[in-house]
Amino acid sequence: MAYAVNIEKCFEKFNDTYSPKIIGELNGQNVMVVRCEGDKVPWHIHEKEDEMFFVVDGILDIYEKDKKITLQNGEFYIVQRGIEHRVVPQGHVKLILFEPKGISHTGKVKAEITRESFDRLE
Amino acid sequence: MAYAVNIEKCFEKFNDTYSPKIIGELNGQNVMVVRCEGDKVPWHIHEKEDEMFFVVDGILDIYEKDKKITLQNGEFYIVQRGIEHRVVPQGHVKLILFEPKGISHTGKVKAEITRESFDRLE
Repeated sequence: MAYAVNIEKCFEKFNDTYSPKIIGELNGQNVMVVRCEGDKVPWHIHEKEDEMFFVVDGILDIYEKDKKITLQNGEFYIVQRGIEHRVVPQGHVKLILFEPKGISHTGKVKAEITRESFDRLE
Repeated sequence: MAYAVNIEKCFEKFNDTYSPKIIGELNGQNVMVVRCEGDKVPWHIHEKEDEMFFVVDGILDIYEKDKKITLQNGEFYIVQRGIEHRVVPQGHVKLILFEPKGISHTGKVKAEITRESFDRLE
C-alpha cells in the first residue's frame, strides 16, 4: 500500500456494517475502517491484543465491566488486552480500527457479526 | 490511558514543533501527536519499523528515493521499514504518528530535531 490513503474516500467505497476493511498494515497491525449500526457486538475479550477505536463520524459507546466511555468525532480509546468489552454505536458510526493482524474481532465469542477474515479495501 | 483521547484537545496542549508527544500505547506501538514546521527532517531509515503518518491539519510531503507522496487532512501514508525517507511540511502541519516504542524518529541520523525520548501528553 505504497500510496496515500484518504479516509473519507475509503468510506465512500462501501456501505455494509460490521465488516472491517483493511486499508493499511504496519508492524503486524491492521489499520481498518468499519461502519457500525445497531447493538450487535457481544461482550468479548482479546487475551493478547490491545484494540484501538478511533471515531471518524458519529458517537460510539464502549462498555467495559465497570465503566462506559463515549467517543465522538476525532476521539479514540484503546481497550487493553484481557479486558472484557463491547461497543454500541448511537446511530450510524464510522470508525478506524487498529489491531494486530489475525485477531478475531469478537474474541472467542461467535456472533452474527463475526467474520473469519477481513477484506482489503482497494 | 484508560480514557477517551480527543485529538483536537491534545494539540491545544502544546505548541513546540518536532517534539512528538505520546497519547496512547497499544501492542508495543506508540500513538503520538506532533506539530511540524520547516524543512528540518534529514533523510533517514528505520531498519525494522514501519511508520505511519496521519495528517490532521495541513499538507505534508513525504519523500522516498524515487517518489513523493503529498498528504492532506484525513490522509495517511505508511513508510515501510528499510525505506529511506524524509518529510517536509508545507507551512504548519499537525500529525498523528504510529510507530513502535523505542524507535529513534530520525533513525541513525542525528539532527537538530532528534529526541532521545518522547514525553507523554497528560
